[in-house]
Amino acid sequence: MREFPEDDIAPLATGAWVLGTGGGGSPYHGFLNLRKLYRQGHRVNVIGAEELDDDAMVAVVSNMGAPVVGLERIADPATQVGAIRMMERFLGRRFDAIMALEIGGGNALQPFTAAALMDLPVIDADSMGRAFPEAQMTSFSVGKLQMFPLTLQDIRDNAVIVERAASWKWMERLSRKACVEVGSIAATCKAPRSGAEVKTWGIRGTVAKAVRIGRAIAAARAAHEDPVAAVVEQENGLLMFTGRVWDVERNTTEGFLRGRVELEGLQGDKGRRLSVDFQNEYTLATCDGTPLVSVPDLICLLDSVSGEAIGTEMLRYGQRVSLIALPAPPVFTSPDGLACVGPRCFGHDMDFISVFA
Amino acid sequence: MREFPEDDIAPLATGAWVLGTGGGGSPYHGFLNLRKLYRQGHRVNVIGAEELDDDAMVAVVSNMGAPVVGLERIADPATQVGAIRMMERFLGRRFDAIMALEIGGGNALQPFTAAALMDLPVIDADSMGRAFPEAQMTSFSVGKLQMFPLTLQDIRDNAVIVERAASWKWMERLSRKACVEVGSIAATCKAPRSGAEVKTWGIRGTVAKAVRIGRAIAAARAAHEDPVAAVVEQENGLLMFTGRVWDVERNTTEGFLRGRVELEGLQGDKGRRLSVDFQNEYTLATCDGTPLVSVPDLICLLDSVSGEAIGTEMLRYGQRVSLIALPAPPVFTSPDGLACVGPRCFGHDMDFISVFA
Repeated sequence: MREFPEDDIAPLATGAWVLGTGGGGSPYHGFLNLRKLYRQGHRVNVIGAEELDDDAMVAVVSNMGAPVVGLERIADPATQVGAIRMMERFLGRRFDAIMALEIGGGNALQPFTAAALMDLPVIDADSMGRAFPEAQMTSFSVGKLQMFPLTLQDIRDNAVIVERAASWKWMERLSRKACVEVGSIAATCKAPRSGAEVKTWGIRGTVAKAVRIGRAIAAARAAHEDPVAAVVEQENGLLMFTGRVWDVERNTTEGFLRGRVELEGLQGDKGRRLSVDFQNEYTLATCDGTPLVSVPDLICLLDSVSGEAIGTEMLRYGQRVSLIALPAPPVFTSPDGLACVGPRCFGHDMDFISVFA
Repeated sequence: MREFPEDDIAPLATGAWVLGTGGGGSPYHGFLNLRKLYRQGHRVNVIGAEELDDDAMVAVVSNMGAPVVGLERIADPATQVGAIRMMERFLGRRFDAIMALEIGGGNALQPFTAAALMDLPVIDADSMGRAFPEAQMTSFSVGKLQMFPLTLQDIRDNAVIVERAASWKWMERLSRKACVEVGSIAATCKAPRSGAEVKTWGIRGTVAKAVRIGRAIAAARAAHEDPVAAVVEQENGLLMFTGRVWDVERNTTEGFLRGRVELEGLQGDKGRRLSVDFQNEYTLATCDGTPLVSVPDLICLLDSVSGEAIGTEMLRYGQRVSLIALPAPPVFTSPDGLACVGPRCFGHDMDFISVFA
């Protein structure tokens, strides 16, 4: 167990943003909330999954919703605490630790602000290694672990428990409808996990990874070096394309942000054009109809100058962007993993071929 | 406490159908289910609200959904038992009795089939005295009683608990969305009520009333007399219009059946035309733009020959119908009652004037 340093809050937010834009809104909201809590004297301890007792009970948390809403409305950490306490009441047992459902986007910070208020440790792990838009797209789902119960709390004191769901997809459908109804944003506490389950199926070290990426970007900026290259080097990624946004098609429907961005090449990519499809997260980049990189490999669009990630809801005409690919967690490239998060899960009729193969 | 006679099952279904078409589907499904349970040896006892201990705990049940779906799919009583057991697990306490949310439509039978399987008595009372389409349109809501928790169970083993809701309207919105998502039909167990609450706010004697109406119709048919007149006389109602359906406009949206039926007069009403608006239930009858009768007075369309009620989802061109009005339970004609179920709650911008005033 180690105390999470205040100086790592900003890098965690920057790195989480690179790893996904997620349903949890901007990690900078979490950054503001967590910094405020630190300044009020709260502290958060981080522990490795290996430090958990096998029968420890872990809260898996996330702010669920449409990215646009998450960006516009700063989350109140009390809402997340409410969802966790509701689960504790329902189970009749207290949690021993909290972890993020997804390390990508604002949800990376979500366990931290709750943990600060509840005096519980945060686990250096998540269940996506990035962000994915749907509840069943997790390593726990790949492991076929039980997906219920789930608790959901909004800012108005609406509180819903999904006691059982017939499948992961049904859990997604039921919780998504409740979430959309309360304004496309709600704090959720997913099915509780034992320490043993987190050790077997959690994706480990992802808090440290996000901090590492955030620090690399900050260091490159400070040294007037290329932050995009710094991320690629740091995480063994690949720079796939450098260009400019020339068109964006975007719809917020059913609690998701869906659409496509068109890029035209600059520098070495001059003359090439790239299309990138998204459902909250970037899911497939194609060049002249040929797939270039797809889920579960991680597709990140970074501002070519600042290295700042550009979420699907922040795309605008004229932005200069670099598209990089980062390797998928191995759990997702297995047949069971691809059945959960492969290209077909996002409507792309193609097999997954990793750019890292 | 008295045993509900097998011979009263059919009159209960016929009478419940007159009192409302409800969200619970056809009462004849419940009739078939209950008759089967009786033939298997199950029996149901009925008790008056006054027989309840003040601290007894009462399950208020209903099949929630769109009428069309309720008509097409016969309900499995096990689903309703599931919702009641879920509430018992959640509260950590067993129920002492079961009552119907609404005596109108299939939901009149819903507590009976569950009670037969659970060996609990059914209370001769409900919270609508008829059927209303929305969860907050109850005498308990007029009494400003707590509206949560609620449990909801579908046929696939999806199980949702609304632990808290910010208002009655929020309870309706959250439970309706879950209901629509699982196919616009689900068994629900509403907020549990104490014996004291049922005695103060329950609408008493409505099971007996439905049986009485059903028996009157059967007796008139057997004697080749006018069953419509028999209902009107039995319940101090008013025959408002006799005519024929010449147009129906109908949409199933958001879990409701909304629309309007146009009638042209026959016999004494020849030359008159009547419009009747509905949202699952008939809400307002107008003649040449002038309101004739509106909620909370009960508007029933009966087949002019058989006296059988015609639900909003069964209207067809050419049907010969009699429109009768029955008095509203007094709890709904108070200012608090009209705020819950008055014409404005159904989108009609007018004050309520009872045809029985």
